[in-house]
Amino acid sequence: MTQNIYDDPGFFAGYSQLGRSVHGLAGAAEWPALRALLPALHGLDVADLGCGFGWFCRWAREQGAATVLGLDVSEKMLTQAQASSADSAITYAKADLEALELPEAGFDLAYSSLAFHYIVNLAGLLKTVHRALRRDASLIFSIEHPIYMASRHPGWIIGADGHKTWPVDSYQQEGARVTNWLADGVVKQHRTVGTLLNLLIHTGFSIAHVEEWGPTGEQVAAHPELAEERERPMMLLISARR
Amino acid sequence: MTQNIYDDPGFFAGYSQLGRSVHGLAGAAEWPALRALLPALHGLDVADLGCGFGWFCRWAREQGAATVLGLDVSEKMLTQAQASSADSAITYAKADLEALELPEAGFDLAYSSLAFHYIVNLAGLLKTVHRALRRDASLIFSIEHPIYMASRHPGWIIGADGHKTWPVDSYQQEGARVTNWLADGVVKQHRTVGTLLNLLIHTGFSIAHVEEWGPTGEQVAAHPELAEERERPMMLLISARR
Repeated sequence: MTQNIYDDPGFFAGYSQLGRSVHGLAGAAEWPALRALLPALHGLDVADLGCGFGWFCRWAREQGAATVLGLDVSEKMLTQAQASSADSAITYAKADLEALELPEAGFDLAYSSLAFHYIVNLAGLLKTVHRALRRDASLIFSIEHPIYMASRHPGWIIGADGHKTWPVDSYQQEGARVTNWLADGVVKQHRTVGTLLNLLIHTGFSIAHVEEWGPTGEQVAAHPELAEERERPMMLLISARR
Repeated sequence: MTQNIYDDPGFFAGYSQLGRSVHGLAGAAEWPALRALLPALHGLDVADLGCGFGWFCRWAREQGAATVLGLDVSEKMLTQAQASSADSAITYAKADLEALELPEAGFDLAYSSLAFHYIVNLAGLLKTVHRALRRDASLIFSIEHPIYMASRHPGWIIGADGHKTWPVDSYQQEGARVTNWLADGVVKQHRTVGTLLNLLIHTGFSIAHVEEWGPTGEQVAAHPELAEERERPMMLLISARR
């Protein structure tokens, strides 16, 4: 079972204060880029893998999704998600994505935001998702970028001229990366971009779009602190078709 | 027209002494991985974009390729390639890959080793290659990895513990990168992995395999100087299907 750091009291308290927790999708700088990859949701059956507080689930329903299944390992987040909506077309359920079971050909879209880098058995999860999608359905997800995750000492290096550089090392050494983010000992799984894409391809998906997210000029103008996100990609956005 | 640095006397003299120039394919550490992506060549019509001294062209014929077209912008390299073989099934020709013309559906395989990062109009080249390939034919190529190329100050950073780290910055700023490698002012084109893959996809290719090359344990044991190549990928190997 994947580490459920989200139910750690300290982590949960910190995570709950992030812009993306307080403001939902609008509080996530990569959301416009991720949204642009999505199909029209009207009438679709949607699964959200790692739904957190349910912001995407509720948005999907606003866009006309027929049903939305929101899955998460965190009971605290699911409790809050359930309290945020009385929409009977949204089902929230506790699930460990390492051992997920889904009905065959039950969905038109699988979505996941920043959850897959926690998964050890990603090959197994992708196989389950592939089987659960209908023909031509899409898997659209964000994941922490390997460039961001690879180093044993991640963090900006400030040059003599004040320029920021991100360290990359240990790139080929895939596996656990332990960081202290909101709580000590958060375990993520580093995989190269190649490994991730080849996993998708070998599972039967075709790669439709790969985006190493960076902020737009407008975003940097409005939020100058985002400028550093142009120096190295923190997130990878992928659209794959069944 | 792409900068033809290979005909610069100093660059040519230096390049001619590299292991991959002296020993051919066996002198290129990434060759076993790239070779593993290739189909059986027997009876195929092959194009090599940026053929250099013609090592791959001659190898392809040894593998039974029906015809091989080796294209390069460097007259010095083509002269040497032509002098290395009297095989009438290999045609060497001078070509600027920025303005390439190829017969429609004339090839079963397009191959390119470490040439595409020099190309400004890569979209145009990929369109030409796509049109020149027969149905289900492959484009298989290596290219310098964006992680290797992005920084304004590329080069190892040695930590207090002696550990090597590679700097990444300016990643989202695509375009020219000028380095002094064998000669001053070598101009390469930085593109993100996402841009490269999306260019292929939008041209009509499907992505079959993506490999961020690193040495095997055996290679590092035999050539300890290769160990640093595990810290960050220098090359990207891609197989795409028409």
